[in-house]
Amino acid sequence: MRTHALDLQMRRAASEPGVISFAGGLPAKETFPRAALAQAAQEATLQMGSSPLQYDWPEGRAILRRIIADRLAARGAPVDPDDVHITNGAQDALAIAVEALGAPAIQVDHATYPGALDVFEAAKAKAVARRRLPVRYVMPAISNPYGWAMSGQARFDCLQATWVIEDDAYADLGFLGPAPRPLLADAPYKVFHVGTVSKTVSPGLRIGWLVAPTRWRDKIRAAKARRDIHACGLAQAMVERLMSSPLFDERLDRLRSHYRQRAEALLEQLPQLRGVRFAMPQGGFSVWVETDLRGDDASLLERAVKHGVAFDPGCFFRAPDAHSQRLAFRLSFSSVPLAQIAAGVQRLGAALTDARAAQRISKAA
Amino acid sequence: MRTHALDLQMRRAASEPGVISFAGGLPAKETFPRAALAQAAQEATLQMGSSPLQYDWPEGRAILRRIIADRLAARGAPVDPDDVHITNGAQDALAIAVEALGAPAIQVDHATYPGALDVFEAAKAKAVARRRLPVRYVMPAISNPYGWAMSGQARFDCLQATWVIEDDAYADLGFLGPAPRPLLADAPYKVFHVGTVSKTVSPGLRIGWLVAPTRWRDKIRAAKARRDIHACGLAQAMVERLMSSPLFDERLDRLRSHYRQRAEALLEQLPQLRGVRFAMPQGGFSVWVETDLRGDDASLLERAVKHGVAFDPGCFFRAPDAHSQRLAFRLSFSSVPLAQIAAGVQRLGAALTDARAAQRISKAA
Repeated sequence: MRTHALDLQMRRAASEPGVISFAGGLPAKETFPRAALAQAAQEATLQMGSSPLQYDWPEGRAILRRIIADRLAARGAPVDPDDVHITNGAQDALAIAVEALGAPAIQVDHATYPGALDVFEAAKAKAVARRRLPVRYVMPAISNPYGWAMSGQARFDCLQATWVIEDDAYADLGFLGPAPRPLLADAPYKVFHVGTVSKTVSPGLRIGWLVAPTRWRDKIRAAKARRDIHACGLAQAMVERLMSSPLFDERLDRLRSHYRQRAEALLEQLPQLRGVRFAMPQGGFSVWVETDLRGDDASLLERAVKHGVAFDPGCFFRAPDAHSQRLAFRLSFSSVPLAQIAAGVQRLGAALTDARAAQRISKAA
Repeated sequence: MRTHALDLQMRRAASEPGVISFAGGLPAKETFPRAALAQAAQEATLQMGSSPLQYDWPEGRAILRRIIADRLAARGAPVDPDDVHITNGAQDALAIAVEALGAPAIQVDHATYPGALDVFEAAKAKAVARRRLPVRYVMPAISNPYGWAMSGQARFDCLQATWVIEDDAYADLGFLGPAPRPLLADAPYKVFHVGTVSKTVSPGLRIGWLVAPTRWRDKIRAAKARRDIHACGLAQAMVERLMSSPLFDERLDRLRSHYRQRAEALLEQLPQLRGVRFAMPQGGFSVWVETDLRGDDASLLERAVKHGVAFDPGCFFRAPDAHSQRLAFRLSFSSVPLAQIAAGVQRLGAALTDARAAQRISKAA
């Protein structure tokens, strides 16, 4: 998957001052609710008793778990708050679920969340895109990198698996409205449901959750205790304050408009790129672009950075059995200032033109 | 190690209102620097730019890593801040070190930190107390559960191992003064050094660190990214503020006096217990007590809770090859109000008297 050389290149691109970066899938920093977080931090440190600052049980704060359970119930999935386990973002939740399942292989989409591929690799679970397997990893509400919602038929098919890991990271950021019914609602006994506030509040807080079938409760708690005892109590208490506010749903509405506007601005520019395929996302932070170019991701990214633009290379997202000869990349519109989107796509066009010329030369030689 | 039944019993004891609890090894909640934390949180959310709230690199904030490196340098261990990896408390640091080393077995003290034993078990590394092994886990500054500093000879012996995991969790809380020279200073190429602010600032923040030999840098960063991307950015920024304050060392001085006073209060009472052995700790949060009783930890704890007192059972701390016929337990004085220490020890005495009577009866039967 990720090579060390590519990682270094990504770090360099991120620190290059003039580069317009469609990489990283970062939330827009102007959406961070700084004042509300400052207020929540005051309450958590000064008024809430010592609990946000003291050691806690591995499953996390009871009030936060209740809020998450209530929000899932409102989406059709009534869950016991004791089956909600607070984690360090979605990544930790995924890692715990994968460790608990201990499967030798996991079925994924052709392109999927790179962090999940990293977790599977570390757990010695092979990621497989071209075969049906007993354990499936999916993002039904809004997928990454595609930004698509799963169809009814695909949801039904998916639930034929023995175990399903449902990654709900972008569910609140569908462009058409509030988060849909989760797969968890239809098969609570087989779905490991992963959620997070990294896209809707702040990723720096590292607060997510895993909802696991009841009979896994003790195993999950023990795993969390062993990993790092529990998620940051202060951040949990702060998220608890924000999510229990009646303003939270309005906030999600605003975020959906915010990111839809950026998606539209990017999609308006993309047709100027030649020899690429893409589709308007239905939510999330990014667009998946497939090109007719061959070669390696590292050299295309290097070329792009020379032209002052960056993206996440396609190889980050692909299951080993879904690697393609054709170069692809993910463009995240989420954190690029609106005013820079057109210029970014122009630079990308120039980089692709360069790459195409280089390919012709190497073919001719 | 920990059984499910014992875990449940610990949870029950913790929620029992009248119980004086010497369990858990919690810092005293009145030591949490609430006002300083509230101030730091204000700055981190409102004044610091977006970085504490945005995604970060796996190694964590550069300023915090520099502060930790500077403090280690002052103790004789100059380290490159890029070899400091910020983690979710010491537990996460330990888990990452153990995963990186991948050893089949790890040498430990006869009684040691239960969280480490949990990590070793999960990583399929056998904890061994009675043999020399290439990988050693030690707490040289102040050990847990004993509360002792390692002798010069023991430090020398320890560094004969191929790899050493140095758990420095209580180093700032030695009763005689500031943290000593770490093993890291003598063998930076073989020591994985683990630190934390859980005992000195707040465990709820979940901020610790791993200092690893330079050639492990990329591997450790990749492991951290895979586990949970990075530690809570807000908590890192807050700890950064606290640790960079000139008042931080004064704070550590006050904490050392605070806990020494509690240790002395407990040690003054302990001689009233019959048939037990213990030694005055040189720092930390607890005293290790060995009894002349046989039987199982769960029933002794149950008996104690009936008498209104709780502790951490000895079996939590023992390596599998160091299990003893004699019951032992850890008494943490750290979070028991001074005024309750005498009553707690009296109740413990009553529970031990009961247990001794029951043992005589069962022998007679």
